[in-house]
Amino acid sequence: MESRGLFITVEGGEGVGKSTNMAYMQQHLTDLGIDLLVTREPGGTALGEDIRELLLRPRQESMASGAELLLIFAARAQHLEQVVEPALANGRWVLCDRFTDATYAYQGGGRGLAVAMIRELEQLVQGELRPDYTLLLDAPVGVGMSRARERGELDRFELEQTAFFERVRASYLQLASESSGRYRVVDASKELVEVEQQLQEICAELATCWGVRRR
Amino acid sequence: MESRGLFITVEGGEGVGKSTNMAYMQQHLTDLGIDLLVTREPGGTALGEDIRELLLRPRQESMASGAELLLIFAARAQHLEQVVEPALANGRWVLCDRFTDATYAYQGGGRGLAVAMIRELEQLVQGELRPDYTLLLDAPVGVGMSRARERGELDRFELEQTAFFERVRASYLQLASESSGRYRVVDASKELVEVEQQLQEICAELATCWGVRRR
Repeated sequence: MESRGLFITVEGGEGVGKSTNMAYMQQHLTDLGIDLLVTREPGGTALGEDIRELLLRPRQESMASGAELLLIFAARAQHLEQVVEPALANGRWVLCDRFTDATYAYQGGGRGLAVAMIRELEQLVQGELRPDYTLLLDAPVGVGMSRARERGELDRFELEQTAFFERVRASYLQLASESSGRYRVVDASKELVEVEQQLQEICAELATCWGVRRR
Repeated sequence: MESRGLFITVEGGEGVGKSTNMAYMQQHLTDLGIDLLVTREPGGTALGEDIRELLLRPRQESMASGAELLLIFAARAQHLEQVVEPALANGRWVLCDRFTDATYAYQGGGRGLAVAMIRELEQLVQGELRPDYTLLLDAPVGVGMSRARERGELDRFELEQTAFFERVRASYLQLASESSGRYRVVDASKELVEVEQQLQEICAELATCWGVRRR
């Protein structure tokens, strides 16, 4: 029986370069011989992508923050059952663009929802499953927002005010300091070549340590 | 300050005549001078109707039962905050086509999800809010299913097997016997004129008792 795969999540606010940096990591980990599944939240399944669309589309009607939270966990339940759990069980590594830490940062920090409520849903939906390793791409809010704006039309989250994103960033940094065992913070405001250098080291370390420990 | 409105829910399996009977009740309560809001779950808001569509559409991908449950409560959170709570607070009565009892019957009884999980979400989303009065339209599964089939194309729930609907019906009847204070069971397999006679009595009773008690 193959040993269980590694569950890696990549977190960060708007415009910190998640897509670019994840593509770089994917290439690098694949080159190191890792059988890798790349996915994202909310999304990663047909139903999850439909839910993502509901979450991101700006609408006339304001969305109840409880509804937003439950939609995110609905997409997560589907994603875990259909995609993440089967992959990990088959020994594949999973590289996931955002996971429950984003819920703590955006819905908890950003929207001010009770952390206890998020924790309850986390337990209900995930049981004991938590990421093995989390990479936080961190950059000052101003840097990220101007990059996000350059990408074009803003979604329902990107339309939030600066203070919202400051709270999101602060929550992420707090999560990183509280669960430092699995967290690695990368300064995403640096030049791309410097960020890539760090990602390269992280990938090599993961492949060495986890490849040995797990196989 | 106006007193709070009455929250009435109508429950029942497929093809028990909820739409027809709700229209009849709406007419009757309005004639009795009640300021009534008629709505439905899942749905009742723009977001809720989008979620309803996700829930009912048959799809290739199977839906995780946890995802289904969370989608239903997401729609409910939106519905309560945007529609039901404001109406009740303004003294309007709310007549709602299905509510959380349907979740106990379909997702608990039908799908076999843990009742404790539903109860946890009910508490999280609704706080102390429960229906004041619930009308259960009950009919043998065979009767209801042949009526549902006559309506045309079946949705994702209507495509379930008979055993599923037997469990749904049994759950509903159990809920009714456990919380008999707010429940009234109407035999929906009877002739329409007999059902209407009963509904008429119920409406008159509600208007008399609650109109007096609440105003």
